[in-house]
Amino acid sequence: MKRKLRMGMVGGGRNAFIGAIHRSAAQLDGKIELVAGCFSSTEEKSKLSGKDLFIDPKRVYGSYNQMVKAETVLPPDQRIDFVSIVTPNFTHVPIATAFLKAGFNIICDKPLGMSLTEAINFRKLVRKSGKVFGFTHNYTGYPLVKEARLLVKKGIIGKLIKVVCEYPQGWLINPIEKDGHKQAKWRLTPKKAGISSCVGDIGTHADNLVRYITNLDIDSVCAELTSFIDGRKLEDDANMLIRFKGGAKGIIYASQISTGEGNSLKIRVYGTKGAIEWKQESPNDLLLKYPNKPYQVLKSGWDYLSQTAKSNTRLPPGHPEGFIEAFANIYLEVAKAINDEVSGKRFKKEYDFPTIEDAVLGMAFIDTCVKSSQSNQKWTKFPKV
Amino acid sequence: MKRKLRMGMVGGGRNAFIGAIHRSAAQLDGKIELVAGCFSSTEEKSKLSGKDLFIDPKRVYGSYNQMVKAETVLPPDQRIDFVSIVTPNFTHVPIATAFLKAGFNIICDKPLGMSLTEAINFRKLVRKSGKVFGFTHNYTGYPLVKEARLLVKKGIIGKLIKVVCEYPQGWLINPIEKDGHKQAKWRLTPKKAGISSCVGDIGTHADNLVRYITNLDIDSVCAELTSFIDGRKLEDDANMLIRFKGGAKGIIYASQISTGEGNSLKIRVYGTKGAIEWKQESPNDLLLKYPNKPYQVLKSGWDYLSQTAKSNTRLPPGHPEGFIEAFANIYLEVAKAINDEVSGKRFKKEYDFPTIEDAVLGMAFIDTCVKSSQSNQKWTKFPKV
Amino acid sequence: MKRKLRMGMVGGGRNAFIGAIHRSAAQLDGKIELVAGCFSSTEEKSKLSGKDLFIDPKRVYGSYNQMVKAETVLPPDQRIDFVSIVTPNFTHVPIATAFLKAGFNIICDKPLGMSLTEAINFRKLVRKSGKVFGFTHNYTGYPLVKEARLLVKKGIIGKLIKVVCEYPQGWLINPIEKDGHKQAKWRLTPKKAGISSCVGDIGTHADNLVRYITNLDIDSVCAELTSFIDGRKLEDDANMLIRFKGGAKGIIYASQISTGEGNSLKIRVYGTKGAIEWKQESPNDLLLKYPNKPYQVLKSGWDYLSQTAKSNTRLPPGHPEGFIEAFANIYLEVAKAINDEVSGKRFKKEYDFPTIEDAVLGMAFIDTCVKSSQSNQKWTKFPKV
Amino acid sequence: MKRKLRMGMVGGGRNAFIGAIHRSAAQLDGKIELVAGCFSSTEEKSKLSGKDLFIDPKRVYGSYNQMVKAETVLPPDQRIDFVSIVTPNFTHVPIATAFLKAGFNIICDKPLGMSLTEAINFRKLVRKSGKVFGFTHNYTGYPLVKEARLLVKKGIIGKLIKVVCEYPQGWLINPIEKDGHKQAKWRLTPKKAGISSCVGDIGTHADNLVRYITNLDIDSVCAELTSFIDGRKLEDDANMLIRFKGGAKGIIYASQISTGEGNSLKIRVYGTKGAIEWKQESPNDLLLKYPNKPYQVLKSGWDYLSQTAKSNTRLPPGHPEGFIEAFANIYLEVAKAINDEVSGKRFKKEYDFPTIEDAVLGMAFIDTCVKSSQSNQKWTKFPKV
Repeated sequence: MKRKLRMGMVGGGRNAFIGAIHRSAAQLDGKIELVAGCFSSTEEKSKLSGKDLFIDPKRVYGSYNQMVKAETVLPPDQRIDFVSIVTPNFTHVPIATAFLKAGFNIICDKPLGMSLTEAINFRKLVRKSGKVFGFTHNYTGYPLVKEARLLVKKGIIGKLIKVVCEYPQGWLINPIEKDGHKQAKWRLTPKKAGISSCVGDIGTHADNLVRYITNLDIDSVCAELTSFIDGRKLEDDANMLIRFKGGAKGIIYASQISTGEGNSLKIRVYGTKGAIEWKQESPNDLLLKYPNKPYQVLKSGWDYLSQTAKSNTRLPPGHPEGFIEAFANIYLEVAKAINDEVSGKRFKKEYDFPTIEDAVLGMAFIDTCVKSSQSNQKWTKFPKV
Repeated sequence: MKRKLRMGMVGGGRNAFIGAIHRSAAQLDGKIELVAGCFSSTEEKSKLSGKDLFIDPKRVYGSYNQMVKAETVLPPDQRIDFVSIVTPNFTHVPIATAFLKAGFNIICDKPLGMSLTEAINFRKLVRKSGKVFGFTHNYTGYPLVKEARLLVKKGIIGKLIKVVCEYPQGWLINPIEKDGHKQAKWRLTPKKAGISSCVGDIGTHADNLVRYITNLDIDSVCAELTSFIDGRKLEDDANMLIRFKGGAKGIIYASQISTGEGNSLKIRVYGTKGAIEWKQESPNDLLLKYPNKPYQVLKSGWDYLSQTAKSNTRLPPGHPEGFIEAFANIYLEVAKAINDEVSGKRFKKEYDFPTIEDAVLGMAFIDTCVKSSQSNQKWTKFPKV
Repeated sequence: MKRKLRMGMVGGGRNAFIGAIHRSAAQLDGKIELVAGCFSSTEEKSKLSGKDLFIDPKRVYGSYNQMVKAETVLPPDQRIDFVSIVTPNFTHVPIATAFLKAGFNIICDKPLGMSLTEAINFRKLVRKSGKVFGFTHNYTGYPLVKEARLLVKKGIIGKLIKVVCEYPQGWLINPIEKDGHKQAKWRLTPKKAGISSCVGDIGTHADNLVRYITNLDIDSVCAELTSFIDGRKLEDDANMLIRFKGGAKGIIYASQISTGEGNSLKIRVYGTKGAIEWKQESPNDLLLKYPNKPYQVLKSGWDYLSQTAKSNTRLPPGHPEGFIEAFANIYLEVAKAINDEVSGKRFKKEYDFPTIEDAVLGMAFIDTCVKSSQSNQKWTKFPKV
Repeated sequence: MKRKLRMGMVGGGRNAFIGAIHRSAAQLDGKIELVAGCFSSTEEKSKLSGKDLFIDPKRVYGSYNQMVKAETVLPPDQRIDFVSIVTPNFTHVPIATAFLKAGFNIICDKPLGMSLTEAINFRKLVRKSGKVFGFTHNYTGYPLVKEARLLVKKGIIGKLIKVVCEYPQGWLINPIEKDGHKQAKWRLTPKKAGISSCVGDIGTHADNLVRYITNLDIDSVCAELTSFIDGRKLEDDANMLIRFKGGAKGIIYASQISTGEGNSLKIRVYGTKGAIEWKQESPNDLLLKYPNKPYQVLKSGWDYLSQTAKSNTRLPPGHPEGFIEAFANIYLEVAKAINDEVSGKRFKKEYDFPTIEDAVLGMAFIDTCVKSSQSNQKWTKFPKV
């Protein structure tokens, strides 16, 4: 890169959750600077956030449409290179559409909108645009997740036969959406979150992680989605049996009412020659198991890891990295593509970040789970998308 | 007790697996002595085992029928007080029936025979007999499993809403049954093992553990049983969605092809006010989680535990106990009942060991899982038994 | 063996701690039976314990001298084959002397009496006697401790350079010896415990474990022993810098006032090519570390372990064994030697249990630590013994 | 803050280690921007690094003296607010002196130069200057370290009696300094590193962590420093017995030849009522132990933590933070003070970051350890500084 990329942000104002993480992830490595934003739904609030973030007030906007217009007319050497969209689900596609049509590259939070149809339609736009679309399935940014993917790819654990991926959280065990908890409220409101809460918010991360590490495609799903807490219109718990193409089987479950759990995403992949295990809450260890050899514990930062894992690590052995660093790895990789794009090159396929294809597959997963659950756990085919 | 109880054993000869564990469990606390046995299917082999075990050759038998006859006519002060049955599944009920009819108390390994019908019919005999029937769902013998049960019972974790119990093993990832591995062979042979391998062998332990800790009854099951390794007539992997009576839901899974796993039974029970987590491979820790308090780690041997947990522990804090000690706790508790019986008392209901009722419920669980799986994962009601 | 060995016991009455563990360890494998004992200091109490243990009242004695006499005159096929001594420290040597002189084999709890002189003198007796003397440094009975020793011996971790062995307990953080806690009281009374509490009780286990695994000899010690709790005449905490012969260095520390700790014996041995780490509280795992390879976790029961580790394990992978099983391994090994002795053979040197030489080295360690501490932490040479 | 603070950097060019971490830490939260630097010892190399970092070439300097001069004459709204010094030890004080005299605030890496005398003399300058001096004992930036400090302060674990702090690394087990490993080379060269390698590089972090959490002052030290690898002029391993003022005792050890260890800083503090345990390699857990209550595991991000811990955490429960985030917490806190300073206020004493006093205490610790070791482990008084 010859200069820092200029980022704009939609969403992420005071009291938001994920916006600040996107900003930290973007800033961590000094390759991206935040120069513009529409941080809240009113201009006044947006300006306050802009002030917190030391952004030129002229580039803090009250609506994303205003932002699109204003940024478009700025000189090329000031204009944002891309926008980061960190708003509630229902706005993802409209906002992304507006920026895309105006020629901006995009990083968008998951899921990709409200329905599979919306996602597929939007994909057409992206494909036509030639612009970069990065999607923050951030867990694939962890270096040892990348190592796991490579170990599987190399055949170290043989042919895959069973996958267990769990994602329990406990933060919705009480009806905090009734007490004005902003994050809980929109996530449990169909008009804002879409057809799913738990699968949409975290189950889709689990699905993406499984896909990323195993390279398996889902054949069909038998899903039971449940709202345990009274009055919820969307599920807060989801248990899925999975059949993969090629014969492997598995379990994916996600939960927001697993009392006492933080963010316990964990994956185990069993093959005929070995198995891998990785837990998000201790992300710097990767367990490799064998039928009759000692377990191996791979640790981030060590020289024996793959070049890919190492180049996604900033620190030497024993210096823990976490969620933000993994998130930053996604940003760094998307930044490479955006840098290509703004330098006039088509971006290379080999960049390692979740794309519009992952975004559509994620919506297909949500859709399939909801359909299976509504049909009383019939096996439901994963659609061709 | 005024004297050691006299135990006979059927099964458990050289090369057997579980028999030696039963013997260690019985001997550990010095309350039971092994005095007779029919250890193998031929008299010659049986005698060899008898010699290893320092048993009077006159009381080492070539068939269980011979043993029943011979022990019956011994004087009361020599005759065995109970028999421990540690043979393959298909013989459990015939052997138990013979001893029961001759008036002996029984400890029997799981599962209870070959079919639910056989189990229910046998239960009638037990109920009529007035004899003690102990069933070795040994994992309920761990002190911290007992603590978990009590914590749930006291309401510490509130109303139960979700249960996840997993039991992965990896020992059958290769077709060792074809290489003459005795344990693998009979377990995968329908005539010897019954209608299920994986659920029958270990899934039923998971089911019993769930029942013991949660006191929940299963309403219905959606099960997928799979034989991953070519040529197997019984499943080596089983994934179950569970609906409990009262609204809780859960997942129970068992596997014998989870490469690299030893005996990784683990249970998590989530309630509205807290959650518990226990792993068999580190059995001296019990995790107690709260919505907004630090996790607690309860450790065996500490004074703060319940009287029940403490009286099932032999050692002070930090001195690990394991599988055999837990197994011995079952034996000790059954021994109390047998001591009552041989002393002419009816045994008390409050003894804490798995009974004929658990044995029948276990067979019902196996039966329900197999039926659901055969019906392409239809929700199958747990029968009234 | 042709028959069970007959064990007598001195000590281990009601309310005692270690006696019951010795009994469980002896009985676990069905090779040893307890047939006689002097369990307490009065005949009345001793008889009560004898009744609990179902021992023939004629062979329950009121004093160890009476026991020696009575057992000596029993016919050879009834007489005990060995005595297990599980009394407070000050009686170890007198009791052992009495039994040894009468021709009995011995298993004795640590430490070996009250002073290095007493220990050395007693060793002369043992050496002359031709009898078996087993000493219960029980931690060396763990299969993975044996594996560790073999790995070191084979040079897997290269030349040893640093050893860290810690043994924190917390049970004496409060002055429970003043509230009549029997175990605490005698251990803190010089007349009963000798010149050391903490080093004598647990530091000596740490020292023995270091020696067993590393095969290193201590050159000199710089020790600080402290009584943190008012009124104690013996130390409840001990920190030692160690210089080994050959240049390795290390730290050994033991503590009884490390609040909240159970029995956290842990050893780390660093060599030029690798390192091992083992913790008593999770004894079924052994960590093997390399300069630039993934950690390996060796687990008990797996086929990849050495024959030695496997033959000291009763259970398959994933079935935890604990303190009693390790203790039983010591008993089993001593039993082989005793069986040789009672069969008229001289016992073989290759049996793997702590002997009179370990017992004397243990007393030398205690002695050296106390001297260094009394000299204000001068480096004190480990004596030639 | 009204604007981002402007940072300059000395050191941290291509191939350096700690400089990049300082930059990430500074940038993470968007409050500091890097605008100038002298990154290497030659102007050419410095310029290359400046280019990597997108810094205006006019503000990339070839020597720190040049940088001081040039920055001093810039207009106040462009000039750096502070300099971050991330060079080898021997240059810390000369560089800091130059910037301080020119009126700049400073963040400096540890240790504070080459000798205690140099450190004390420099402190005079700092005290007189009225400028901010932050010192990157970064481990105190972890939120759970701050929680530990507060728990101790509140008396939750009672009166402190024992402290064990260990810091094993393994990266110097091989003589990599001979193979041109830049980091190893200067750290083992007395002219560049000073009188100590292992204590100076990591032991001093351990000392600072102990001081920060316990608030105990060291009374005296008994230290053994060893060079295990041939040809080293500075130690690669250090074992220290510690006496604290007020009667507590402890062990601090640091090692660079503990094969296979990454960066395993760990602290245990034992009090009369409880104990705490924290490990840098799993920094988001804090263990709290009691004499007779279950262990508590405090986890970062949870609401039950202190306000201090929470305000030093960016993420919700279960989202791991690591080394860089802790480092950034130090930067954030120093930035508050610098912001005060550049706004014309004297900075407040209550800011929570390591100061010049910590820096001098750290040099005193190194000095005391070296002296004790040179005197064959005499107890050496910690000097009044």
